[in-house]
Amino acid sequence: MVDKKVNLKQKFESFSDQWSPKIAGELNGQYVKLAKLEGEFDWHAHEQEDELFMVIQGALTIKLRDRDIQLKEGDFFIVPKGVEHKPVAEQECRVMLFEPKQTGHTGNVKTERTVAVEDQEWI
Amino acid sequence: MVDKKVNLKQKFESFSDQWSPKIAGELNGQYVKLAKLEGEFDWHAHEQEDELFMVIQGALTIKLRDRDIQLKEGDFFIVPKGVEHKPVAEQECRVMLFEPKQTGHTGNVKTERTVAVEDQEWI
Repeated sequence: MVDKKVNLKQKFESFSDQWSPKIAGELNGQYVKLAKLEGEFDWHAHEQEDELFMVIQGALTIKLRDRDIQLKEGDFFIVPKGVEHKPVAEQECRVMLFEPKQTGHTGNVKTERTVAVEDQEWI
Repeated sequence: MVDKKVNLKQKFESFSDQWSPKIAGELNGQYVKLAKLEGEFDWHAHEQEDELFMVIQGALTIKLRDRDIQLKEGDFFIVPKGVEHKPVAEQECRVMLFEPKQTGHTGNVKTERTVAVEDQEWI
């Protein structure tokens, strides 16, 4: 449990690796994570967990099988559990995620980018 | 469940009442809420729920019994369950809250400002 305030900008400046969400807060069995995304991620779904994406800087497209969700700074979208999605960012964007602690970022698929849940870092 | 994106600015412009959190999203048994705060709120604690405050616009002080947490735009703070707190804003600020669905905003105390959990509105 973090017992002090978190400044998003400061936290984002503390790491540079992309597609590797960092834990910035924990509450009620959920994590607040921060990530830098650029390029295309893999199609995946989370069987048990809904996942919130909020764009803090830049723009992010969340592709769903039937449509694209275009997010800009100040937008959020909740991907319901079981729904396949593929995040795509033309330029690096900064996003905040809110999801249960046990959520793996590549969901039901394992790729070379997959970071094991137990290896996710706090910042 | 919201199935489209949420734009924070648009949502904040859709209501004007203060100290009356509106529901903007739902995931994993948690709500994302938006609120406009100005002045002093009552001291209270949530016995079972941690509560996240993120400042979207303006500044907010969260008074704890032993210290003050000063939050500006882009800062968040998680008040752990059981911890007494008192939000104070000199000027109107806009905040986003993450908390379990059953969380009442005045926690363990009931005041004239208390909005019953079942009366909380979606925006």
